[in-house]
Amino acid sequence: MSKVFVFGHRNPDTDAIASALAMAHLERTLDPSLDVEAVALGEPCVETRYALDHFDVDAPRVIEHARPEADGVILVDHNERQQSVADIADVTVHKVVDHHRIANFETAAPLWFRAEPVGCTCTILHRMFGENDLTPPADLAGMMVSAIISDTLLLHSPTATDLDRTAAQALAERAGIDLDHYGTDLLRAGSDVGDASAAELIDRDAKSYTMGSTTVRVAQINTVDVDSLLARRDEFLAAMNAEARQQGYDLFVLLLTDVLKVDSDLLVVGSPVEAVEKALGVTVRDGHAKAPGIVSRKKQIVPQLTEVLRAT
Amino acid sequence: MSKVFVFGHRNPDTDAIASALAMAHLERTLDPSLDVEAVALGEPCVETRYALDHFDVDAPRVIEHARPEADGVILVDHNERQQSVADIADVTVHKVVDHHRIANFETAAPLWFRAEPVGCTCTILHRMFGENDLTPPADLAGMMVSAIISDTLLLHSPTATDLDRTAAQALAERAGIDLDHYGTDLLRAGSDVGDASAAELIDRDAKSYTMGSTTVRVAQINTVDVDSLLARRDEFLAAMNAEARQQGYDLFVLLLTDVLKVDSDLLVVGSPVEAVEKALGVTVRDGHAKAPGIVSRKKQIVPQLTEVLRAT
Repeated sequence: MSKVFVFGHRNPDTDAIASALAMAHLERTLDPSLDVEAVALGEPCVETRYALDHFDVDAPRVIEHARPEADGVILVDHNERQQSVADIADVTVHKVVDHHRIANFETAAPLWFRAEPVGCTCTILHRMFGENDLTPPADLAGMMVSAIISDTLLLHSPTATDLDRTAAQALAERAGIDLDHYGTDLLRAGSDVGDASAAELIDRDAKSYTMGSTTVRVAQINTVDVDSLLARRDEFLAAMNAEARQQGYDLFVLLLTDVLKVDSDLLVVGSPVEAVEKALGVTVRDGHAKAPGIVSRKKQIVPQLTEVLRAT
Repeated sequence: MSKVFVFGHRNPDTDAIASALAMAHLERTLDPSLDVEAVALGEPCVETRYALDHFDVDAPRVIEHARPEADGVILVDHNERQQSVADIADVTVHKVVDHHRIANFETAAPLWFRAEPVGCTCTILHRMFGENDLTPPADLAGMMVSAIISDTLLLHSPTATDLDRTAAQALAERAGIDLDHYGTDLLRAGSDVGDASAAELIDRDAKSYTMGSTTVRVAQINTVDVDSLLARRDEFLAAMNAEARQQGYDLFVLLLTDVLKVDSDLLVVGSPVEAVEKALGVTVRDGHAKAPGIVSRKKQIVPQLTEVLRAT
C-alpha cells in the first residue's frame, strides 16, 4: 500500500495538528506495515506552537496537495471538502475521525468513518487508544490534552462533554501536567495576538461553509482582552470586507472570544446580516454585536445559521 | 426526550430490519429512559420473513413519516437521504450506523456516526454489543446472523471481511443454529420468486443513487435459477423501462444474482449504457450482459459506476 497522509483542516488549530499526530501514531501501532504520515494543511498557530514547544514535539510538515506523494488520506477533525486538502477529489479517503457536522462529504465506496458529538477529536482518539488497549506516549498525550483544552476552553465551553472531561484528566496525568495550570497558560499563550494585522488575525482560525446558497466564513480570535481588539474594529471590518470580496464570501462572521470569561463579541460584514441576528438572537449595529455566552462556532453558530440560511 | 425511531433503508432487506432491531435493543439497554422504537420503511421481503418466522420475532411496524410521532431518528444500514424516510429533512438525525458509501447526507449539527467498510451493518452492531460488554438475546442474534448471511451470500461475497466471519460465527452460536445449514436454507427461501410479476420483483431490493448528474436505480434479485428469470427478459426490460419513465431514473441496472454460484447476469435500460459497460467491464447486448463474479451492488457496481458517471 502506498503512503497515506493523515491531516486536520486548513488553518489548523491545536486539535487539527494533535489529532493528526495521534491518529498516525495509532494507525502505525496497529499495523506497522502501513506507511502513514501526519501532515498539516498550514503552519501551527501560536497556541499550537506553545504546546509543541512545551512537549518537545516536531510540527508536522505542511502540504498543499496529497498527490503524487499519497493516493490515500485519513481526515481528522474535519470532513467538509472545502476545509480539506486541495486535491481531495482525486484521492481515496480511507478513514475519517471527527466531531463536526457532516456536510459536503461524499465517497464512491464504503469507508471507515467515526464521528461523535464531543468537544474535541482528540477525545475520540483517546477512546480509540483505550479500545485497542493502547496508551499514547507522554508527549503525544500532552498534545492531545492541549487540543481538548483549546477546543473546550479548558472544559468551560458548552461543547465540553463528560467524555472530554474524562479524557482530559487521563491525558493530563499521562503527560505529567496540572490540567488547570497548564490549561490557563496554553489559553493565554494562544490568545496573544502580538503585533499581527487584522488581515492576518481573521485568517488564523477561520472556516468556510456553504449554507443553503450562501457562502459563509466564520472566524474566531481567542483573547484575554476583547476591548483592545474592539478598539481596532474599523481595521477588522475593512479586512473582513476585503477578504469577503476577494474570496467570494457572502457573509463573514468574526467571533472575538474571551477565553477566560467564556463570552464573545461578534463582528459581521456582508449579507444577510439579519440571518445572523435571527440565528443567534443578537442585534448587529455598525457591524458589531454582543453575544453573551456564545463561544462555540460548531455548536452555537453553524447549526443555527445553517437552519436560518437554508430556509431563505 | 421524545420518541426516537430507528430504521434501515426503504425496500428493507434483512440487514435493514435486523440492524434496526439490534440498534434499538442496544440503545434501550444502554439507557432505559430512552423511548426508542425500531420501525421499517417497508414490509419485510420473503427472505426477512423467513428469518422472522424462524426466530419468532415480530416484524417492526411500517412507517412513511417520522413526524409527528418522532422528532429524532437513528439511521441504520443507510445514510443517503433518498433511501430514507420521506421527512428526513425535518427531523434530527441523532446517530448513524452503516456500511455503505457516504453521500447525500448532511447535518446542521455534530452527530454520532459510525461507518465501517464491512459486509453487513449487523457486524458493526455485533461489535458495539461487545464493546459495551453486552450480548444480544438469542432471537435477536438469529436476526443479526441472518442479515450477515443475506448481505454476504453466506460469507462468499467479496464484501465479506474477517470481521463478518467472526461476527457470523459468534451470532450463530448464540442463536443456536448451524451457520451453513441455516444459511443455505435462508438464501434459498429468499430467492423464491413465487409467481411475482417483474414489476414487483425489480422493486423488492432496489436503491436509487445520484451519480454526477445521472439518476441511477440499481436493483438486485437473488435466485438459485437465473435461467428461468432470463426467460422472462422482455417482461423485465418492459417493467424497468416503465419504472424508469415513471420515477425519472436515467439508468436502471438489474442484477440477477445466483446466490449459490456467486455470479450475476445484468439487465440494463436507459442511458448511458456505455457507462455500465465501461464501469463493469461488460458488454451489453439487447439489454443483457454476463457479469461473472459480480454480486455486490455496494462494492462492485456503485463505486465503479459513480466514478465513470462523475467523469462524464
